[in-house]
Amino acid sequence: MPLDRAEAASQEVRGDGGPSSGVTGEALHAHCRALYAVCRSITGPGLRATLAYVAERLPLAVREVPSGTPALDWAVPREWTPRSAWIRSLDGETVVDFARHSLHLLQYSKAVDRVVSNEELQRHLHSLPEQPDLIPYRTAYYSDTWGFCLPHRLRESLTDAAYRVRIDADLAPGALSYGECVLPGESADEVLISVHCCHPSLANDNLSGLSLALELARALEGRKRRLTWRFLFIPGTIGSVAWLAANRDGAVGRIRHGLVLSCLGDGGAFHYKASRRGNASIDRIAAHVLRHEGAGNQLLPFIPYGYDERQYCSPGFDLPVGCLMRSPNGTFPEYHTSADDLDFVRPEHLARSYAALERIADVIEGDALLRSTAPYGEPQLGRRGLYAAIGGTGPGETGRGFDQMTLLWVLNLADGRHTLLDMAERAGQPFAAVRAAADAAIAAGLLVPA
Amino acid sequence: MPLDRAEAASQEVRGDGGPSSGVTGEALHAHCRALYAVCRSITGPGLRATLAYVAERLPLAVREVPSGTPALDWAVPREWTPRSAWIRSLDGETVVDFARHSLHLLQYSKAVDRVVSNEELQRHLHSLPEQPDLIPYRTAYYSDTWGFCLPHRLRESLTDAAYRVRIDADLAPGALSYGECVLPGESADEVLISVHCCHPSLANDNLSGLSLALELARALEGRKRRLTWRFLFIPGTIGSVAWLAANRDGAVGRIRHGLVLSCLGDGGAFHYKASRRGNASIDRIAAHVLRHEGAGNQLLPFIPYGYDERQYCSPGFDLPVGCLMRSPNGTFPEYHTSADDLDFVRPEHLARSYAALERIADVIEGDALLRSTAPYGEPQLGRRGLYAAIGGTGPGETGRGFDQMTLLWVLNLADGRHTLLDMAERAGQPFAAVRAAADAAIAAGLLVPA
Amino acid sequence: MPLDRAEAASQEVRGDGGPSSGVTGEALHAHCRALYAVCRSITGPGLRATLAYVAERLPLAVREVPSGTPALDWAVPREWTPRSAWIRSLDGETVVDFARHSLHLLQYSKAVDRVVSNEELQRHLHSLPEQPDLIPYRTAYYSDTWGFCLPHRLRESLTDAAYRVRIDADLAPGALSYGECVLPGESADEVLISVHCCHPSLANDNLSGLSLALELARALEGRKRRLTWRFLFIPGTIGSVAWLAANRDGAVGRIRHGLVLSCLGDGGAFHYKASRRGNASIDRIAAHVLRHEGAGNQLLPFIPYGYDERQYCSPGFDLPVGCLMRSPNGTFPEYHTSADDLDFVRPEHLARSYAALERIADVIEGDALLRSTAPYGEPQLGRRGLYAAIGGTGPGETGRGFDQMTLLWVLNLADGRHTLLDMAERAGQPFAAVRAAADAAIAAGLLVPA
Repeated sequence: MPLDRAEAASQEVRGDGGPSSGVTGEALHAHCRALYAVCRSITGPGLRATLAYVAERLPLAVREVPSGTPALDWAVPREWTPRSAWIRSLDGETVVDFARHSLHLLQYSKAVDRVVSNEELQRHLHSLPEQPDLIPYRTAYYSDTWGFCLPHRLRESLTDAAYRVRIDADLAPGALSYGECVLPGESADEVLISVHCCHPSLANDNLSGLSLALELARALEGRKRRLTWRFLFIPGTIGSVAWLAANRDGAVGRIRHGLVLSCLGDGGAFHYKASRRGNASIDRIAAHVLRHEGAGNQLLPFIPYGYDERQYCSPGFDLPVGCLMRSPNGTFPEYHTSADDLDFVRPEHLARSYAALERIADVIEGDALLRSTAPYGEPQLGRRGLYAAIGGTGPGETGRGFDQMTLLWVLNLADGRHTLLDMAERAGQPFAAVRAAADAAIAAGLLVPA
Repeated sequence: MPLDRAEAASQEVRGDGGPSSGVTGEALHAHCRALYAVCRSITGPGLRATLAYVAERLPLAVREVPSGTPALDWAVPREWTPRSAWIRSLDGETVVDFARHSLHLLQYSKAVDRVVSNEELQRHLHSLPEQPDLIPYRTAYYSDTWGFCLPHRLRESLTDAAYRVRIDADLAPGALSYGECVLPGESADEVLISVHCCHPSLANDNLSGLSLALELARALEGRKRRLTWRFLFIPGTIGSVAWLAANRDGAVGRIRHGLVLSCLGDGGAFHYKASRRGNASIDRIAAHVLRHEGAGNQLLPFIPYGYDERQYCSPGFDLPVGCLMRSPNGTFPEYHTSADDLDFVRPEHLARSYAALERIADVIEGDALLRSTAPYGEPQLGRRGLYAAIGGTGPGETGRGFDQMTLLWVLNLADGRHTLLDMAERAGQPFAAVRAAADAAIAAGLLVPA
Repeated sequence: MPLDRAEAASQEVRGDGGPSSGVTGEALHAHCRALYAVCRSITGPGLRATLAYVAERLPLAVREVPSGTPALDWAVPREWTPRSAWIRSLDGETVVDFARHSLHLLQYSKAVDRVVSNEELQRHLHSLPEQPDLIPYRTAYYSDTWGFCLPHRLRESLTDAAYRVRIDADLAPGALSYGECVLPGESADEVLISVHCCHPSLANDNLSGLSLALELARALEGRKRRLTWRFLFIPGTIGSVAWLAANRDGAVGRIRHGLVLSCLGDGGAFHYKASRRGNASIDRIAAHVLRHEGAGNQLLPFIPYGYDERQYCSPGFDLPVGCLMRSPNGTFPEYHTSADDLDFVRPEHLARSYAALERIADVIEGDALLRSTAPYGEPQLGRRGLYAAIGGTGPGETGRGFDQMTLLWVLNLADGRHTLLDMAERAGQPFAAVRAAADAAIAAGLLVPA
């Protein structure tokens, strides 16, 4: 829905204002490339650098929550600052080096600097016997330990009796960082878009989600918006917990629709995981868009495992927040390994994901409850130029972006109880066609806000 | 359900009074034959002649609504009186003649009398390239134009440079005619049966519907009726719009069940198109009867295209009116062509349609809400002669038109919340069997009105 | 769930107290063997002997309701005391003898002692032409007649012109006997277990049900019970009618769950026939247990034919009572014949049925409505020892009888609106796993009664 089509006078009713297209897969992939090598974690300099990248492109407020701050059932952890980490043979050969890949270091490892026996070392190594060439991603946020992640094949070659291990890292009071971009709309009702930014060098999980959120925010930024859009760039779990704690009596209560974005750069079918409610508006919107977005897309019921929807959908909040993905977490072999890289995430997949996200945003912004001004009998469409001159052949195309039948559906269901999305579902038509038919009927004076 | 079975004393409870059978397919087909050649339209002499035929057989009130009368969003159009119409070659050969087939003339063509170039003539011709031997049915009710409909093969033979065209027709202030037959019942609650009578020489669409409505009204006429039955013989769209406008504050509010009848003379499976509500009583009744009426019958959801149910089911009225058909409009090759003729419509198809319609009427008239007089535990059926003397073999037949199990269902569900139709659905039995079991239980004092 | 795990302090919340296992198939089959030969009926000495057997093993109150006592729509019949019965040829050969098999005598036959013609005799014989070697079970409780049941092959050999027939039986004022065992619980809310004990030598129908009820009552007897359990050992139909009549203003109103047990000793799949309500708690509990009890089990909708659920589910009572069976009545060839014997009913089938019954009882006793103490965001499980130290691999086993995912489900759904059974259904886990996860969360202070 191009921006220039909007006219102020009928803006509210006509539902103009969907995000402009023109975002390319290449632009989305460029964000992934720019941020891939950074060693992010749930706190620390890598996360801060990532937020700085976003802040250069969006009006982003970066929040810093001090370590120890209570947050719901949690407390903000100490800040982790890894500097260097390696395993060397006693004759000085470096066999594992954090400088080469940020996944090599177990997240939240404490400092260590000593010679360890092979046996002790093994207890601190993480590898994947069934994917022997890949480095796994592992975390120990709330454990007092250290460790390295490495390809299993490399691990098997570590046969010396002892190795020198060094991790130069601080785990000290500091702050949890997250970024927040609020784009006010005509209404204080909010749409929440949440992406986790805590994973180190993993491209699909979740630089893909970050890229899409960034570009959607930019597209919405320059436009008239019906609703207020809030974008959160946060570390997983503790980030959403901290945001929920801080906004419990404020923004949380204004959220009408929410989406967690993750794993949107691979070539799998779309998967939408419903909110805990299961029948929230966002659940119906995502289902509608995915149905018209091609075959094979899947709707998944809510489960209490996954991304930050776990926090938004905890029973005390129970927010209408779902999760949009291509291949879901844990279902693709590259998941949480070094194979989730810049080759796995492809521009064309990112572009297709963005298009679906944009359509979801179009429905969120464009849905409306309208009422027919001529509800008794059908309105006479012929004298309004909305009906074929010659009868007897059935309803056909109109050449206006909707067919005759869609217009009849819109008029028949415009009883103040069916939204445009309801109509699209009932008519089996994409939302855009129903919106176009409704706009034609509004222009003809046949529909008004309910 | 034969008339002579009714007894006044238990009439109300026992649900007697279904329409008598005995209507033959031949009688139904005879009505089609008598009316086939008439050139009907939404106004004019052909429509009036058709209503006169019905009025000879039923107590029919014929209404005349003057041209220009406002009717909801519409106004009654001018009256169209076609007298003759032809296309002749310049050497006097008649190539198309309205006198030969009423479909030849585009409905609501204005008068014309001149020589036209082949090129101009072509813009006024309607034919079917894929069915080259058939004349299509086309209308131009609200356009200022003229035209002819003809077989495509004939059209292709019109190669002269010019032709003489003459249409002798009036399009002038007059009236819209429709017929209304009301058969009062014990209750002011109404059943609406609506058939469109505006199509010229098309037998299935809708002389079939007209014939069935006529015979059902005759069958109901001489009987005690629980409900008031109203039969409308109307021109499509503008006829129902005019009737709704005139009865908006009266009969409209009393309609409890309604059926549009159309295309009931072909050999296709039954199709019942639900009311806009989708769960109205008539929707359940029609679904029940069609389920027991043989395999292959189809329930269709409401769509805002079709016959006069479009008007009855417009959002302001939202009446419980469905549409009963064999092959639905637009789905059979003869539809809206000269092949929809007296051979296409067959006596045996009309008879079978009438039987189904009669069963629907039986349920409408015979459904009831009854209450058990012995709801605590099962009543002891043995001492009432309603249970087999020897036990141990399970429930069986009773030889009374219902099996033992059906009687047990009726007694178990007679809690004042389940209608007889509910019971028939739950028991998986035809309504007639449940009605018979209920009548036996009423006779035994085990059921009373709820 | 072993008894010694229960601790008084957290008993109520933790749902301890399911029936102890250890009941063997052999013990269950022994009850069938002990009672098989007895000629039971809906009244009389055989029924009384059967109740005496149960009373030796349970605190059973045996009720005697005098003949003629009104009971709902019925009256208690006269008591039937059969002593001997035979058919002899005129030369003294006994061809049918009640002493050989209790099924030979038509139930409630009146006394007779005379020579009858073959023709008259035939009118009093019952046999199965399609199962010519089996004796059928037939009754004539409320008819004034006499009769014999015999193998069809034997019947065909009766070619003499006349036979001597003698039935020595009383049909006289007496009493209807039934047994009632009430095990009080913390709550006055009741669970009803009902078994019919009126069939003569039929093992599956229903010595199997009697054995299971007897053992379940014994298992529950020595335990702390959340609910009050009531076991009825009754003659079919008139027994439940009499009990309902006597308890109409008392126990009937306290029944929260009920099960009729029958045909539980054969090797067929489990069949659970739902209560009339169809969505009662017991219906969901039985469906849940059968779903996890192996493949092929079937849920049947309520029908108003079968066992005493017909009375409990009559419209005036409409109690939440279903019926648990292996092969349903009327669906197996041995049904109501002499082939329903001690070989047909097998210890391993009885044991498996008992295990399923016990699981149903576990859910009834162990279900609870709990509320999370940390509903805002997820509780931090790691510091409570309920989460793996190393992250990144997804939820796994805990080694505590439930997996990590089940615990997440329990915490997510503990909003005071979902029972543990609701959680088990949503999580796709057996109730026992959900109960174990809930117990762990209770122990960690994360759940309290809602």
